[in-house]
Amino acid sequence: MSAANPRIIDPVELTRELIARPSVTPADEGAMDALQRRLTALGFTCRRLAFEGPGGEGVHSRIENLYARRGTEGPNLCFAGHTDVVPTGRAEAWSSGPFDAEVKDGVLYGRGAVDMKGGIAAWVAAVSRILAEGEPKGSLSFLITGDEEGPALHGTKRVVETLMAEGEVIDACVVGEPSSQQALGDTIKIGRRGSLNSWITVHGKQGHVAYPHRAANPVPVLVRLLSRLDGHVLDDGYEAFQPSNLELTTIDVDNPASNVIPAEAKARLNIRFNPAQTGDGLIDWLNREAGAVQAETGLRITLEHLCSGEAFLTPEGDFTRAVQDAVEAVTGRRPEASTTGGTSDARFIRALCPVLELGLVGQTMHQIDERVPVSELQALTDVYVEVIRRVLV
Amino acid sequence: MSAANPRIIDPVELTRELIARPSVTPADEGAMDALQRRLTALGFTCRRLAFEGPGGEGVHSRIENLYARRGTEGPNLCFAGHTDVVPTGRAEAWSSGPFDAEVKDGVLYGRGAVDMKGGIAAWVAAVSRILAEGEPKGSLSFLITGDEEGPALHGTKRVVETLMAEGEVIDACVVGEPSSQQALGDTIKIGRRGSLNSWITVHGKQGHVAYPHRAANPVPVLVRLLSRLDGHVLDDGYEAFQPSNLELTTIDVDNPASNVIPAEAKARLNIRFNPAQTGDGLIDWLNREAGAVQAETGLRITLEHLCSGEAFLTPEGDFTRAVQDAVEAVTGRRPEASTTGGTSDARFIRALCPVLELGLVGQTMHQIDERVPVSELQALTDVYVEVIRRVLV
Repeated sequence: MSAANPRIIDPVELTRELIARPSVTPADEGAMDALQRRLTALGFTCRRLAFEGPGGEGVHSRIENLYARRGTEGPNLCFAGHTDVVPTGRAEAWSSGPFDAEVKDGVLYGRGAVDMKGGIAAWVAAVSRILAEGEPKGSLSFLITGDEEGPALHGTKRVVETLMAEGEVIDACVVGEPSSQQALGDTIKIGRRGSLNSWITVHGKQGHVAYPHRAANPVPVLVRLLSRLDGHVLDDGYEAFQPSNLELTTIDVDNPASNVIPAEAKARLNIRFNPAQTGDGLIDWLNREAGAVQAETGLRITLEHLCSGEAFLTPEGDFTRAVQDAVEAVTGRRPEASTTGGTSDARFIRALCPVLELGLVGQTMHQIDERVPVSELQALTDVYVEVIRRVLV
Repeated sequence: MSAANPRIIDPVELTRELIARPSVTPADEGAMDALQRRLTALGFTCRRLAFEGPGGEGVHSRIENLYARRGTEGPNLCFAGHTDVVPTGRAEAWSSGPFDAEVKDGVLYGRGAVDMKGGIAAWVAAVSRILAEGEPKGSLSFLITGDEEGPALHGTKRVVETLMAEGEVIDACVVGEPSSQQALGDTIKIGRRGSLNSWITVHGKQGHVAYPHRAANPVPVLVRLLSRLDGHVLDDGYEAFQPSNLELTTIDVDNPASNVIPAEAKARLNIRFNPAQTGDGLIDWLNREAGAVQAETGLRITLEHLCSGEAFLTPEGDFTRAVQDAVEAVTGRRPEASTTGGTSDARFIRALCPVLELGLVGQTMHQIDERVPVSELQALTDVYVEVIRRVLV
């Protein structure tokens, strides 16, 4: 096709070009420039937003972000994604170099192939085909970050804040994360659970195990609190969501002496919660439970909380139906609307507009030999063409 | 007195001589030789028993021990103690050098002053006074180790095993540990609790907090087991003993990642138990509880146990009464017979004969500026003279 019409972009070629830039968070290595050149050629007005500050582990980092728009009218259909990738792991363990982007037996190998340079390339290729058909209604836009796999402090969150402050209108957004489970388009994500981390410290009084009355052991107090928390049913689920879930992720006392009662005991937990909960509501509940155990035991308990995203659910409606119709038209399968799994930048974009996630099969993401069949990349491009056609009507 | 009769030993002088040898476990620095010279001069047949092997932290150590006896007839009254001392802590923080053994305002300062070079010196001084009065009935003996404050692997335990194998008869033993609480002789120890350490590991399956069904979190399983253990009443006490007590001393998961369910969770506990329990019985109970939680949760739980001493109680009888009478005759106070506190080498000697602990006021033991009033050392010598008189009748 690219020979027939030089403005039509091959998704495999573009995926390979992007994989060749080793943009492991927070590095960019020219990935954003490569994308911007393609979008400029397609008539997009590109705006780079670089944000910087303390990143993961407090290390200062500067993050490249891009907001590109073609058209001034509504509706504005946005594609969101990220050019950064997770580390390769042991590069020697790969079948070919993780940034070589080799195609073998019809399969493209490389870090970012499915998460999510392939998704970006497929949407760009889809846009090039739509434009070759004529000028579409409304606007098309891209919201691309280089900080999705990292702490996400200077990426989509800050771009969304900037766009909202400026009054930019986006009517609907597709996030190109690898949402498919077994086959392309079997699953779209229509919501995400929220995530809350809490750190608990019980403050006791050190002493000798032979004289417990002169000490105050924080460990059984922590066990009592964690036992209460773990035994509590937060909810039974919410619409398409599974029940909210609390995981105790660590307990650390770090007392090497077997004859010593320690002074402090710490634990951390994570709650993935559905829209029946809010971060603040869960924080209140945790503080109340800790307060009750503090009152029972007399030992001071302190908590710190960090809610990295509230739960959201994109309401059923025309947008969701149009996306499901597009997938069914290409693949013959109507996608399941799911709310399972981890977080994504959709948690920030939901503040702007209805947002869905639709992308490749995610099975090899974050693994050695991350890979995508060439045919799947082309099929995703077909799906995205159908999505744009059905939304921009 | 020493001027009047050169064979009478001054307890203060001998305590100072022993403190001057910096015998921090496992070092001896000539402390045992200094003691042996005095005992030889008093007519004791001295036998050195050196044992060696892996000590604390697995470091090879060689420990000096001494068994000295004067007389061949029964009854054989033994005095047991140790010449090793705990480290000084910050030597600059002491009022005078920890091994200088200075006397200031009638108080002798130094590491080991009360725990328990002072106790040894007082018994040696008491023996010298008894011998000055004439030949006593029966035999007097000393069982002295250099490995009480350390792991106690090559000390009293091995000496007792050797003496038992040889058929040595000891009829009663006074351990010179600082048993007194507030005033000399207010407390004698007539028994000790046993001590059991147990290490618990719950084996789960690592995973991502967003997909708990693909992982098996060991932390809540450990919390469930510890909650059961902590809530269990082991017993309500036993004769003079307080109830057996379980302390959770540490929990360690060491999982730095807030989005990861860890693979393993570990805890350690210590049980101080009275004679209503045995080490084996407690180990059985812990294994049964872990087995029950393993059956409920499907996660494998492994345990390791180390019982460092069984509980014991010296039966009431002539020996205990004689010692109490001796204390009351000197101090005017009848000592309380106690079973509280930590462990001592009495836990090994109990296999040989009835054993009691009677010594100085322990308040400054193991501390900066460990110290004993000269008058208290002399009073303890008077008490020991009375004990020997009343037991060797």
